Amino acid sequence: MAERAARTQGSGAIERHTITWGDAAVRAPLRAIAERPPLVHCMTNIVVAGFTANVLLAIGASPAMVENPDESGEFAAIASALLINLGTLSPSVETAMRQAAAAARRAGTPWVLDPVAVGALAHRSRLAAELLADGPAIVRGNASEIMSLAGLEGAGGRGVDSLAASEQAIEAAAGLARRIGGAVAVSGEVDLLTDGARVLVIPGGDPLMTRVTGVGCALGAVMAACVAVADPLEAAASASALFAAAGERAAETKPGPGSFAVGLLDVLCELAATP
Amino acid sequence: MAERAARTQGSGAIERHTITWGDAAVRAPLRAIAERPPLVHCMTNIVVAGFTANVLLAIGASPAMVENPDESGEFAAIASALLINLGTLSPSVETAMRQAAAAARRAGTPWVLDPVAVGALAHRSRLAAELLADGPAIVRGNASEIMSLAGLEGAGGRGVDSLAASEQAIEAAAGLARRIGGAVAVSGEVDLLTDGARVLVIPGGDPLMTRVTGVGCALGAVMAACVAVADPLEAAASASALFAAAGERAAETKPGPGSFAVGLLDVLCELAATP
Amino acid sequence: MAERAARTQGSGAIERHTITWGDAAVRAPLRAIAERPPLVHCMTNIVVAGFTANVLLAIGASPAMVENPDESGEFAAIASALLINLGTLSPSVETAMRQAAAAARRAGTPWVLDPVAVGALAHRSRLAAELLADGPAIVRGNASEIMSLAGLEGAGGRGVDSLAASEQAIEAAAGLARRIGGAVAVSGEVDLLTDGARVLVIPGGDPLMTRVTGVGCALGAVMAACVAVADPLEAAASASALFAAAGERAAETKPGPGSFAVGLLDVLCELAATP
Repeated sequence: MAERAARTQGSGAIERHTITWGDAAVRAPLRAIAERPPLVHCMTNIVVAGFTANVLLAIGASPAMVENPDESGEFAAIASALLINLGTLSPSVETAMRQAAAAARRAGTPWVLDPVAVGALAHRSRLAAELLADGPAIVRGNASEIMSLAGLEGAGGRGVDSLAASEQAIEAAAGLARRIGGAVAVSGEVDLLTDGARVLVIPGGDPLMTRVTGVGCALGAVMAACVAVADPLEAAASASALFAAAGERAAETKPGPGSFAVGLLDVLCELAATP
Repeated sequence: MAERAARTQGSGAIERHTITWGDAAVRAPLRAIAERPPLVHCMTNIVVAGFTANVLLAIGASPAMVENPDESGEFAAIASALLINLGTLSPSVETAMRQAAAAARRAGTPWVLDPVAVGALAHRSRLAAELLADGPAIVRGNASEIMSLAGLEGAGGRGVDSLAASEQAIEAAAGLARRIGGAVAVSGEVDLLTDGARVLVIPGGDPLMTRVTGVGCALGAVMAACVAVADPLEAAASASALFAAAGERAAETKPGPGSFAVGLLDVLCELAATP
Repeated sequence: MAERAARTQGSGAIERHTITWGDAAVRAPLRAIAERPPLVHCMTNIVVAGFTANVLLAIGASPAMVENPDESGEFAAIASALLINLGTLSPSVETAMRQAAAAARRAGTPWVLDPVAVGALAHRSRLAAELLADGPAIVRGNASEIMSLAGLEGAGGRGVDSLAASEQAIEAAAGLARRIGGAVAVSGEVDLLTDGARVLVIPGGDPLMTRVTGVGCALGAVMAACVAVADPLEAAASASALFAAAGERAAETKPGPGSFAVGLLDVLCELAATP
């Protein structure tokens, strides 16, 4: 790993490591995905479902979107990993999510929670708190979502934009990670990932990533693919570093958000296939 | 404004003005959006949700899709503007739409109604008539949808294609605009906008815009973003002129509908960011 | 037709014909669509709805997505053709699908069934078996889906990937085609189509088609557009040959799945418009 730092936090020190796609260890989960494609059960929102599936296909994983209360539990049990993204809820989808999370816990299917807009809307904040009890391996969100979910209330998000910087959220993230026994990823200009003992810093990316819908949601889906083949913190780091590198590369030649989104899929496919 | 004309209609004269993106006043709402991004609550259909979000992000607005009956009222009250597009309905979504429209009325959130396929299907015609009572600031549709909504029955639309030319619908549109105290936009080869006293004519665009799904729906979403910062007729004109200019520009170099849709996002971003 | 072969199967011989887009007869349904656009009622999933609509617009058809139980029966009766794709189900959508299939049967609207992930999930296998009673003109799926639907149970699909090769499924497909009195399309590296008496072989395509979500689903939608103007086997062949040719052409210049998907829409539009 390229760089190390440490700081004191609460009663103990949390080590910091900067991670990039250039580190061979970071690329290992993507190689494992290419060799044996995991089946990723995605329960995500109507806005980004297509883009998410295309991102998973680009990296060589097998996406399947199943959000039916009559099917989600059965499918979560046979899938390699599960993503639950709270973007667009409905009573039917919420029931399906509860069943999938419970089935994943029972079957040992690792799963990722993306608490979209938690903190901004009371109903989904309660749902997210409830789903946490089923032990997601990874929680991925922006700073205000993570702080809200950790119970800090300080965020007051106004929807899907983060009003709090990632740095402010890192202590809340570390506490949440220890509580779930997994990893928490705070997305922002710099992604910060933690398992409660370490903090990984992922630089890179490009501002155009915030001008395309679903980049963050798709990152959560790639974390789910990676957690089928790696431990939570390693999975989150691999996915984040891939996106940071792909975002930078795709932005080099693209004049705007439309062509950037197209190029991002091309670059993700190319990077994921490079040993 | 580049050109003026007047004609006699019913008991009074409705002035006509031709509007283009070249008019500085037309660009003012987009500048305001770039400076302080409005949060646009979109209740739209599963076909175009992703494209709509990408269009809003391209112009610098903040989209959030919330269509849950347990959340839509709360969110409509805190959003800067609301879009209700009837494209793909369900009992759950209809409940959510009713609550959002009512909450928007109470909270003073301006909102846009896009009555997709009203006239072709009895059920949604009743829903649209009901939602009208909550006072949308703008109604945007094609000629047959607007005529049906205004109660003219002459349209007999067969789905989402307009069978009636915009010109035929303009009197119905003017009456509807006076009834809601807002603006009505009739999309077609030439867009016609009216607040019941004036008619704005927006030339431009390109036939490729009809070969990409969601261009009209996304136009309604941009009208919602604009009506957060401008009065209804001005908002509708700004959005329509932006789309007409962007469609023309994007069509210049694109060989087909796939690359045109990508280029349209790039051009919308560029035009919206140009003072 | 370019090539012929025959083989013995059960009590009779099933002729084999290889079909390509170069055959003028294969292009006839697309010409008919361009001249008088059919209204294609699509009940499809949240992942591919946008791409499906864009493919139908690219070939000159008129898509309309209606999946509301309060509307689907009425709309299926007035549409030129109907697609039912089981990708993302919900109790509401299932009710709407049952009503649409029944209304299509009564009104004589030809329809296409795409039994996504049937065999992998018990609930949708029962739904698909039930919908079969309403007589789809075409069933399109991968080998494991078709074998499951035909009652062979041998497939054990693990979601949307086909574990059984098309060749293994062809006898099951022929039996299913005779049972519905229509055509069955088995998608794979080579598409195999049958009406129970003949087998059409469609070579071509490109592996990138499996790295873009919704290509198979959109193929089912194009079969629906074609079956509005042609008999089931002819319609399936026309759509499959179009996709095989477009996939090959689009892959020639595209570096990855993002740009390939965009190019596929451009090429579909160009090929469909070429006499």
